[in-house]
Amino acid sequence: MSTESINHQVAKFASELSFEQIPDNVILRCEELLLDTLGSIYAGSTERPVKTILAFAQSQGPLQGSAQLLPHAGTSSPYFAAMVNAAASHMVEQDDLHNSSVFHPACVVFPPALAIAQSIGASGKEFLTACVVGYEIGIRVGEFLGRSHYKIFHTTATAGTIAAAATVGNLLKLTPSQMLHALGSAGTQAAGLWEFLRTAADSKQLHTAKAAANGLVAAMLAKNGFTGAEAIFDGKQGMGVAFSESPAYDKLNNQLGTRWALLETSFKYHASCRHTHPAADALLSLITKHDIAIEDIVQVTAHVHQAAIDVLGAVNVPTTVHQSKFSMGTVLGIVAYKKFAGLTEFDEALNDPNIHTFREKVHMVLDKQIDDAYPNKWLGKVTVTLNNGKTLSEFIEDPKGDPGNTLSRPEIEAKVTRLMQYRGVATVEEIQKVIQWVWELQTNEHINSLL
Amino acid sequence: MSTESINHQVAKFASELSFEQIPDNVILRCEELLLDTLGSIYAGSTERPVKTILAFAQSQGPLQGSAQLLPHAGTSSPYFAAMVNAAASHMVEQDDLHNSSVFHPACVVFPPALAIAQSIGASGKEFLTACVVGYEIGIRVGEFLGRSHYKIFHTTATAGTIAAAATVGNLLKLTPSQMLHALGSAGTQAAGLWEFLRTAADSKQLHTAKAAANGLVAAMLAKNGFTGAEAIFDGKQGMGVAFSESPAYDKLNNQLGTRWALLETSFKYHASCRHTHPAADALLSLITKHDIAIEDIVQVTAHVHQAAIDVLGAVNVPTTVHQSKFSMGTVLGIVAYKKFAGLTEFDEALNDPNIHTFREKVHMVLDKQIDDAYPNKWLGKVTVTLNNGKTLSEFIEDPKGDPGNTLSRPEIEAKVTRLMQYRGVATVEEIQKVIQWVWELQTNEHINSLL
Repeated sequence: MSTESINHQVAKFASELSFEQIPDNVILRCEELLLDTLGSIYAGSTERPVKTILAFAQSQGPLQGSAQLLPHAGTSSPYFAAMVNAAASHMVEQDDLHNSSVFHPACVVFPPALAIAQSIGASGKEFLTACVVGYEIGIRVGEFLGRSHYKIFHTTATAGTIAAAATVGNLLKLTPSQMLHALGSAGTQAAGLWEFLRTAADSKQLHTAKAAANGLVAAMLAKNGFTGAEAIFDGKQGMGVAFSESPAYDKLNNQLGTRWALLETSFKYHASCRHTHPAADALLSLITKHDIAIEDIVQVTAHVHQAAIDVLGAVNVPTTVHQSKFSMGTVLGIVAYKKFAGLTEFDEALNDPNIHTFREKVHMVLDKQIDDAYPNKWLGKVTVTLNNGKTLSEFIEDPKGDPGNTLSRPEIEAKVTRLMQYRGVATVEEIQKVIQWVWELQTNEHINSLL
Repeated sequence: MSTESINHQVAKFASELSFEQIPDNVILRCEELLLDTLGSIYAGSTERPVKTILAFAQSQGPLQGSAQLLPHAGTSSPYFAAMVNAAASHMVEQDDLHNSSVFHPACVVFPPALAIAQSIGASGKEFLTACVVGYEIGIRVGEFLGRSHYKIFHTTATAGTIAAAATVGNLLKLTPSQMLHALGSAGTQAAGLWEFLRTAADSKQLHTAKAAANGLVAAMLAKNGFTGAEAIFDGKQGMGVAFSESPAYDKLNNQLGTRWALLETSFKYHASCRHTHPAADALLSLITKHDIAIEDIVQVTAHVHQAAIDVLGAVNVPTTVHQSKFSMGTVLGIVAYKKFAGLTEFDEALNDPNIHTFREKVHMVLDKQIDDAYPNKWLGKVTVTLNNGKTLSEFIEDPKGDPGNTLSRPEIEAKVTRLMQYRGVATVEEIQKVIQWVWELQTNEHINSLL
């Protein structure tokens, strides 16, 4: 492979990876990540931004088609199913995250994969293979674009377009050459700016919706002979030059087929921005260990990496539930009072005076040790001052859900059950059906509706 | 307006501009630009990349709808009609260009405007007003992003997404606040890299298709309450920071409502990349003035601005007709031998040994005077060496089609007739109908099919 360009190597891997080449533990984790994501899609489906995108899809797309609009039995064309399900999947901030790429793979990989697999009647093994491709490629693109990219761009949107194209391209059996064109057409559509965070706008849902849909467009066009840039990653006017101050091209083909980046993906335990999790778990540990009464706390310092300040710094006093998930003070307040920051806890917290008071006691400081370790490790550290003048600190290495502290299948089922029951979206029977559908996926000969 | 942010001022203008506020000469020129564009759409409709995008639209969208798929009577939803017609409009490199923004407004303004106007039954005046909005805003976004942006990004794709959103938003009667959200949702979707040029890939058609369609999405979502970044232009993580080394924010609200940038738009006379036109016209003038036999020419130097080298430099030996439109040597060869570089002339040139030989004699050099004037003026200069050792130079100020050397209505009708007849797409009767439809647009109460 060494004489081929990096672009060709990525395309070849994405085109040619087969189920047999993937280790069992990668497939099993992929199933778990899929189930986790379906929970997020169900929970997100009732939110206003998702319903607005659904209404758009229904006004501009066919009202019936070969792909399912989750959570229920509505259908549309694969393009719109991918768009709507991807919008829902990232909505409640419970979908997975890959640490070193700061990229949420699930929301841009599973929705287009499901839509196309249903449409062409792919097998469960073909579906899982394509999803592994999406994780492996998307994560490497996130790593290649790096921290300077993430300061301005929402990596899940930009790298996500490539991930979706690679996923769909593998399902559509694109040749390496067609896959190269699909990656080119995906990369030239890659977009998504963080600016929306400042006013808690709805763009995050648009980003995942469009990354999934645009990647699907790129792969479907390539299947029919539409061409894209050959050197979309490392060309003179390609993604590296356009989107990064220090593009790390060697990350793109880093141990393709031997390092399984999917296994490094974290489940989200709390329903908040992932940048709040390390401090949240450190605070929870500190409170439990020292049996602290919350009202005795007068100040909390969250020691964080720079990206946490970049992303969370824009939120001071949250005015919506979604925005409160990006408020370090709110998240730490919920964890302090409720010991867990799930969807229901966030809904209750928005107008809770205790949480408001606690939020004012929290501030973030940049910590060199934590910043140096990031994004490979998301270390957690808090310092708490009590009203007796005492100061306590706590440090945690792996937030709950991280690969080093992952969720078991029963814990994932419990999380997914909570998510699918949120606002009564699914019945207990439906939840059981979905869980069973996922655990039996490897023997599924032709994917169709989940229900 | 001075206390409002630039983002708000742009949104307010785009929302509130009315037909009565627009000078007559702007409306008349808008009609001419529309007719010119319809010619380009018809001519582009038979090309492979456009047909591939059409096939995608027909596989993923409804097979009937409220908007017309040009050139004939097929229909789809406005989303897909905007996408397909925008893909066609830029295909043959005959659509208009605004000089100082290096932005092709027509291809991202007229297709979404037509699709939405047909869908809601807007009047001709409402349609023209919205199109003027799209030109004024899109051009200013191109100017704001500037030359550093254009070095890597296809401005027609990025600024085009904003232009399309502003156009559709005006037609949908968005309030200024809704328009602000539409601009935010458009800006966060803005994408399009020049990398595809290096291998003559099809991305240019994807860029215009997606800019038109994505802008339409942004406006339709905003109409239904979907929010976007408030400071998409000048925010800390907005378009200026993301996309430009020297964002000129003051260009965005520069004389909004008093300077009509639409009037500064050039018609394309030759069917090639606009960066070839100044040199082409200078060479034509030199050959005519000195009555030169083409075979006596041994060398041609095209003195150009830097952007010409950035865009055209990637093409050496063109392998497709589309790529040959980005080859300075091919364009100058056609002009030398045929005196005009239209669609038919390009088709014939690809395998013409005379053109191949001429191409080898041409090279470009950066010229300080020309680069300093660019992009406000696109000056043309060539130096020709003859086989008798003599050297001749020619300089032109305004290429044919520029505002200072514009096309008359009969010249536009003649150009459009040539375009619509290309490959027999339209009959003489259809051409007459389309021309009449445009010239009567101001009295059209409810826009529907052109035919």
